[in-house]
Amino acid sequence: MKIGAFGPGCMGFGMATSLIRSGHEVYGADINPASVARLCGESGSPLAAMSALPELDAVMVVVLSGAQGEDVFFGEWGVVERLAAEVVVILCVTVAPAYARSVAKRCAARGIDFLDAPIFGRSVKAAQGKLSIMASGHPNAFRNTRSALDAMAETVFELGDDAGAGSAMKAVNLMLAGVHIAPMVEAFTFGMTQGIALETFMKVIPRCAGTSWMLENREPHIVECDYTPRSAVDIWPKDLGIVLDAARTSKFAAPVTAAALQQFLAASGMELGREEDAAVAKVCARNSGLKLPGTDET
Amino acid sequence: MKIGAFGPGCMGFGMATSLIRSGHEVYGADINPASVARLCGESGSPLAAMSALPELDAVMVVVLSGAQGEDVFFGEWGVVERLAAEVVVILCVTVAPAYARSVAKRCAARGIDFLDAPIFGRSVKAAQGKLSIMASGHPNAFRNTRSALDAMAETVFELGDDAGAGSAMKAVNLMLAGVHIAPMVEAFTFGMTQGIALETFMKVIPRCAGTSWMLENREPHIVECDYTPRSAVDIWPKDLGIVLDAARTSKFAAPVTAAALQQFLAASGMELGREEDAAVAKVCARNSGLKLPGTDET
Repeated sequence: MKIGAFGPGCMGFGMATSLIRSGHEVYGADINPASVARLCGESGSPLAAMSALPELDAVMVVVLSGAQGEDVFFGEWGVVERLAAEVVVILCVTVAPAYARSVAKRCAARGIDFLDAPIFGRSVKAAQGKLSIMASGHPNAFRNTRSALDAMAETVFELGDDAGAGSAMKAVNLMLAGVHIAPMVEAFTFGMTQGIALETFMKVIPRCAGTSWMLENREPHIVECDYTPRSAVDIWPKDLGIVLDAARTSKFAAPVTAAALQQFLAASGMELGREEDAAVAKVCARNSGLKLPGTDET
Repeated sequence: MKIGAFGPGCMGFGMATSLIRSGHEVYGADINPASVARLCGESGSPLAAMSALPELDAVMVVVLSGAQGEDVFFGEWGVVERLAAEVVVILCVTVAPAYARSVAKRCAARGIDFLDAPIFGRSVKAAQGKLSIMASGHPNAFRNTRSALDAMAETVFELGDDAGAGSAMKAVNLMLAGVHIAPMVEAFTFGMTQGIALETFMKVIPRCAGTSWMLENREPHIVECDYTPRSAVDIWPKDLGIVLDAARTSKFAAPVTAAALQQFLAASGMELGREEDAAVAKVCARNSGLKLPGTDET
C-alpha cells in the first residue's frame, strides 16, 4: 500500500517504520521538516515529492491534537478534498468521540472511508509494530487497511461500524489509567506516614486486591527515582480533559476522575509537567512532608 | 495448640475450622451463642467450658470492630488480664495502626505477645485456610503461632516487629481496593454514555493499561446483575473511614480516597448498603439515566 503519514513524530515515526518494514510505501508530511527527513533516512519518502495525493491508498494521521487533525483534514492542508474516493483515512489521534464522528461524516460526504483508530502504547512499542489500536469504522475500511493495521499493532480491537467507538473506548481506558495513578501515589505515601516503606509496599500490594496495571508499571520508577518521561505528567490534563469534556457534554458526573485530574494539575503547577507521570507522587510527598527515594525534597 | 477464637462468625468460623482441620483445639466465644454452637458442631468447644483461660496458647480475635476488640481485650471480657504470660494474642480485626500499637503496648505490660494480623479474603477463603494475613509483631509471636497462621492463610506477609505495620499495610491495600471500585464504575458507565456496551468494555479493558484487580473481580458481577453481597457497599464507608481517620491524624491529604468514599456513601444513601459493593455502579447509572444489565432502573 501507498500510505501518507501525517505527523511522523515520536509515535508516528515508529508506526511509519513498522509499515515500511512490512513492505508498504510511506510518504511523510509534518510541520517539522526534521521529522520528514528522519523518515526519509528509513526508506520513507516526503509526501511533497508525490505529484498528486490521489495516488495514496490510505492516509494515517498521528498529529498531537484534534485541532491539528482538523488542519490536516479540512483546514490548511485540506487533505480530504484532495484524496481519491475509496482512500481510507485512519485517525490515530486522541480526540472526543463526537469529533471522530464529525470527521467520519465529512469524509463520507466525499466517498472516503474513515477509521477511528486511536492507539495505545509508548514509542518503543510503535517502533516494534506492537501497539494496541482501538478501531471502529466501516468494514470496508478495516478490510482495505488490514495489512497496515497488522504491521503497526499487536492487538487491533475492532469496535464496530460506528466512528466514535474507537475514541470512546480510548477515552474509557485513559480515564481508568490516568485515575489509577492518583490512588497509587496517594496510597504509598499514606503508607509511608504509617511506617510502611515503599519497597515493602511494592513487595505486598502487587499480590493483593489493591493492585492495578498502572501501579505495577509506574511504581518501580518511583522506587528507582527515575522520572524520565515515558509518559509525562502534562499528558494527563490534556487527555483527562478530553474525557471530562466528553462527559460534560453527555451530562455525566465523573467525581473521581475530576479529583484525580486535580492531582495532575497540582504536579504541573509544581513544574513537574515534563517529568514521568508518576511524579504526581511528589505532590503527595510535599503535602505531607515525606521524602521520596532519591529525591532531596522533604 | 489450644486457641481461643473470639468472634467465630462469618470469617472467624472458617478460620476456626481451618485450625481444627490442622489439628488445633479451638475454643469459641461470641456474643451470639449460635456462632459458638455452630463451631461446636465442627469439633470446636465453647470457651465457657474451659475452667481457666491460662490453659490457652493463643487467642485469636476476629470481631467486627476495634471497639468490640477493646471489649474482648480490656473491657467486658477482660481477656488480657486473665491470660498467662507468653500467650500470643492475634488481632485479625481491621483497626487503625495506632490502635494496634496501643493494644500491643498494653499486652506487653502483662508479658503477653501480640500479633497485629489483619486478614484479607472472603469467607470462602477463610473456610479453605487460604486467607492472606498481613502480620507484624515480635519474632516470638510469629514463632509461637506459625502453625496456626499457616493453617489459616495461603500467604502470610511478615511486616516486621512493629505492631501497627500489619494494620497499616491493610489500610493501604483497603485504600487502593476501595478506591478502584469507584473509577471502575465511573469508567464503564461513562463508556455507556459514549456508546460502549458493558460487554465490550469487559472484553477490552482487562487487556489494557486501565485494568485493576478489583475491576476484573467485580465487573463480571455487574454484567451478570449479581449483587449478592460477597463484600457489601456498607463495608467501605467503615473501612475507608478507618483509612481516612488515620490519614487525618497524620495530617495526610487523601483527596482521591475522599472522593471515592462519597460514591459509597451515595450508594448507601440509595439503600444499597447491603448489596455487593459493585452496586455503587447504580449511583453512576442513576445520575446519568442509564440502565444497567438486568436492572429495571433507568
